[in-house]
Amino acid sequence: MASEKVNLEATRHSASHVMAAAVGELFQNVKYGIGPTIENGFYYDFDLARQLTPEDLPKIEEKMRLIIKQDLPINCKELSVEDALRLVKELKQPFKEELILDLKEKGEKTITFYTIGDFTDLCRGPHVDRTGQIGPFKLLSLAGAYWKGSEENPMLQRIYGTAWSTKEEMINYLKQLEEAKARDHRKIGKDLGLFVFSDLVGKGLPLLTAKGATIKRELERFVVDEEIKRGYQHVHTPPLAKVDLYRTSGHYPYYKDTMYPPMKVDEEELILRPMTCPHHFMLYKSEPRSYKDLPIRIAEIASQFRYEKSGELTGLMRVRMFCLADAHIICTPEQVKSVIKEALDLIDYINSVLGLTKGQDYRYRLSLGDRADAKKYYKDDKAWDKAEQTLREVLTETKAPFYEASGEAAFYGPKIDVQVKNVLGKEETAFTVQYDFVMPQRFNLTYVDRDGKEKQPIVIHRSSIGAFERTMAFLIEKYGGAFPTWLAPVQVAIIPISDKQLKYAQKVAEEISSSFAEENLSVRQEIYGQNETMQEKIRQAQLQKIPYMLVVGGREEEAGTVAVRARNGENLGVMKVAEFSARVEKEIIDKK
Amino acid sequence: MASEKVNLEATRHSASHVMAAAVGELFQNVKYGIGPTIENGFYYDFDLARQLTPEDLPKIEEKMRLIIKQDLPINCKELSVEDALRLVKELKQPFKEELILDLKEKGEKTITFYTIGDFTDLCRGPHVDRTGQIGPFKLLSLAGAYWKGSEENPMLQRIYGTAWSTKEEMINYLKQLEEAKARDHRKIGKDLGLFVFSDLVGKGLPLLTAKGATIKRELERFVVDEEIKRGYQHVHTPPLAKVDLYRTSGHYPYYKDTMYPPMKVDEEELILRPMTCPHHFMLYKSEPRSYKDLPIRIAEIASQFRYEKSGELTGLMRVRMFCLADAHIICTPEQVKSVIKEALDLIDYINSVLGLTKGQDYRYRLSLGDRADAKKYYKDDKAWDKAEQTLREVLTETKAPFYEASGEAAFYGPKIDVQVKNVLGKEETAFTVQYDFVMPQRFNLTYVDRDGKEKQPIVIHRSSIGAFERTMAFLIEKYGGAFPTWLAPVQVAIIPISDKQLKYAQKVAEEISSSFAEENLSVRQEIYGQNETMQEKIRQAQLQKIPYMLVVGGREEEAGTVAVRARNGENLGVMKVAEFSARVEKEIIDKK
Repeated sequence: MASEKVNLEATRHSASHVMAAAVGELFQNVKYGIGPTIENGFYYDFDLARQLTPEDLPKIEEKMRLIIKQDLPINCKELSVEDALRLVKELKQPFKEELILDLKEKGEKTITFYTIGDFTDLCRGPHVDRTGQIGPFKLLSLAGAYWKGSEENPMLQRIYGTAWSTKEEMINYLKQLEEAKARDHRKIGKDLGLFVFSDLVGKGLPLLTAKGATIKRELERFVVDEEIKRGYQHVHTPPLAKVDLYRTSGHYPYYKDTMYPPMKVDEEELILRPMTCPHHFMLYKSEPRSYKDLPIRIAEIASQFRYEKSGELTGLMRVRMFCLADAHIICTPEQVKSVIKEALDLIDYINSVLGLTKGQDYRYRLSLGDRADAKKYYKDDKAWDKAEQTLREVLTETKAPFYEASGEAAFYGPKIDVQVKNVLGKEETAFTVQYDFVMPQRFNLTYVDRDGKEKQPIVIHRSSIGAFERTMAFLIEKYGGAFPTWLAPVQVAIIPISDKQLKYAQKVAEEISSSFAEENLSVRQEIYGQNETMQEKIRQAQLQKIPYMLVVGGREEEAGTVAVRARNGENLGVMKVAEFSARVEKEIIDKK
Repeated sequence: MASEKVNLEATRHSASHVMAAAVGELFQNVKYGIGPTIENGFYYDFDLARQLTPEDLPKIEEKMRLIIKQDLPINCKELSVEDALRLVKELKQPFKEELILDLKEKGEKTITFYTIGDFTDLCRGPHVDRTGQIGPFKLLSLAGAYWKGSEENPMLQRIYGTAWSTKEEMINYLKQLEEAKARDHRKIGKDLGLFVFSDLVGKGLPLLTAKGATIKRELERFVVDEEIKRGYQHVHTPPLAKVDLYRTSGHYPYYKDTMYPPMKVDEEELILRPMTCPHHFMLYKSEPRSYKDLPIRIAEIASQFRYEKSGELTGLMRVRMFCLADAHIICTPEQVKSVIKEALDLIDYINSVLGLTKGQDYRYRLSLGDRADAKKYYKDDKAWDKAEQTLREVLTETKAPFYEASGEAAFYGPKIDVQVKNVLGKEETAFTVQYDFVMPQRFNLTYVDRDGKEKQPIVIHRSSIGAFERTMAFLIEKYGGAFPTWLAPVQVAIIPISDKQLKYAQKVAEEISSSFAEENLSVRQEIYGQNETMQEKIRQAQLQKIPYMLVVGGREEEAGTVAVRARNGENLGVMKVAEFSARVEKEIIDKK
């Protein structure tokens, strides 16, 4: 299995070189950037005289197939740095030259090159021995990419491809890709009318329509009510503060580049907040605290502002302003373990409500600090040791599925990342639980302990569901827009067969509403009264992914019933309105 | 009655002059500012060599009483502008000199002066004839006040006083003042721990504690749910946008001074929003609209930012950032009347839930535009006529108590202001319903009418409860902190008589919680388990104005009951937990 993985990696790497060779045959004066493997495939960056179009891809694939068919050997040679520089100059490859100079600076003495036919490329390897060993592959897409990722460098053209050991694997993957494209939250968000962007409002600043805002509100109320039940104090603080607040916290130098610029007003210099902790510390400090009061769990649905680069903005996934289900638990050192356990328990609960299975759809990552990097990590080895050990113990004791990663911690301490698989099966950090031994010092947070002495608490920064925008993007893709009933923007579509049943449709809606009101609940329903055929109305409701369609004709009106259809087309039968209401009420209460 | 009012006005004005005369006798080189009457009293601004202290007030009152006792005549004389200038120069009164020059510039030819004994003061009058006619009075407080209200001018010392026709009236007023001071939301907010301010966060930016945030959340959910029930679409839009958005709306030149400064990020110039309408217009414009879709009611609990002067900031009442229950109803011209009626109906409903009686606690003001002022009011006489007539008709047809006021309109149209009496009985504009015929043009809002033609809708800007911060301030003062059960941060205090009943107290709390959960409701309760006497715990719960105290001793534990006390000390008797739960559930559902 392990060697297979290595082989696949080498196959993809070789496919990338073959693609580069093919491009070199099809175009003149190609300047090569880099061509690494990535998850499920590879890419290569080129500087070309003309802009590539999707129509070029089959032609390049054709050339690649020829090279593969020839079963050419892939030969490696090692050159001294000087010879290597001479070679790439001869080949007129300035980007490669730059790479070799970078390697030289890092102290490399020799450089390896791989050759396929006439094409020789600077490369660390490994590769398969012969091009014939490359299995099924496909070129997928084009993109612009700055040389070395910097906007100050020239823009190159990138070709993405995928390669696999078997045809079956590739077909599966391409299906998955197709599915992901269909589930792209930007596409579904548009189809279902959940959110829009506006040039006049600005980039990365989504406007949620009533439908999108309904999902956000349901998630928000769910999280707030659940957290309050678990002893959190939900507060409300302003999303801006004096820059001094972030100088005190030490965030300003670290986060300055991703913060909005300060606003000078009168004698004050204000700034939009990139995180909530300092505001919560101000609330903590607003009265004296005793060990009896701890742990204090200060929570907030907090607006935060981060200045993401425009190239990185992606629908609701990467935005310039978001609402985080944030909290800061301030506790004694003795309480840290139980506090983190309860934070993980809440995350497990919320994830289960959202339909995520632990170990399968998500797991934990213990992110440790790179102690050597004093610029990125606060210097206090003893505190780091203790914190990391505590987190490790919690994860082990709760039998949480987790792995460890170095150099991923916050500057003030190690953290547990919640790693969730997206619709492509790729793991991403959704949000975190952080151990903080630095902020209590910086803000001089204290409590009076049992012995009457002032002591310093520990702060646990945590979210429970992450940023609502991002969570919404994730859920849109997970459910493909077919939200569970409790989250669906419209839960019930009442479809009169003809205009004659319009009044009855209205009566049904009222009966459902009052049944819900009796249970102190509310329901979101729409009457499809437009002048169209029943089939067309059902089609529209299905496109809107409304969980239930109640078709009402003359027979239903006479019997005081509704014919219930699910959005997947399933016929759930004819039932009394009360029976239908009770069914949906239960689903909503159970968050199904 | 009318002449009595004039007399009271003259009395207060004369009292102000008598105070000025008294200050002139007690201090040397007094420079006089202005000394007008205000609601319930008067003030005078002085430039004095030393800072006044509250201890000075009785001394000034003493001198005033002497002057009144002497029953001096108050004589009026008329001088030419030149003679007037000569006189105030002689009197070494530079502020008066400035006032006369202002009057001269306005074209005044003659200036009146009033004299009491040795004290002669520039004044328009009217005054009572003799100082003996001044009734009971009292000096109330000191404050700093810039000359002509501008921070660039010198700061003067202001003395506030009150004067009445009868002793009884004055005693009543002073009682009311005392009561208002006790109910000041800043004081109660501190006593009950509802909100705090922080120097590091910034001025005018309150941080709501869990208790304060609970009130806000309850109000917010109430408004959102009620509005959705009434056909509003609740959306969520970002609290900032490109400055261009406010250039398009035309707000930028009008509101620039009260907006935060723009933030330059990349190629975009962003600014915190002072109002929500342009964002909602962007949502309206995001798809084509038909007459069948109208009216569209776009609502939001919207964060807004206004840069108020630091001198005007007052607790939660005047802040630099607030959350408005905002909405923009976009409708055809034919729908305007019914749309405004439904907006007023919602306001009446919400006010009734908050315990406000129409005509008694609040009324409406029809605010008309001053058509002559082209700078402040958009020029379109016909549109103004129609809009004003429409609003007048709505108010008349709905038999709403209202009065008319000129020059109070928005720049884009007339409005109906909701005038609410504060705890001092003073009427203030809480929020408004505005008729807007300008923004639809500026943003090119359209809908396709029945005849297939594109037409321009009308926009109604409205709130339903106003800004939550301000509403909270108002409610804190109205209820004196003793919130109705549904709003109370803590609704039930469970007070075990001794430690022996701690377990039973816990059991009671759980029983109440699950009774609430069965009804899909939640309850906010606290167990007073601290090691103190029952009396002390009851006292603490009463200070926190918790609606219900459940005292549980051995007897209650045996019988499975609770002894219920109201916060006013009333004994509500011993009852089964279920009976108590049902009572509180009903109150919460009924918003009592």
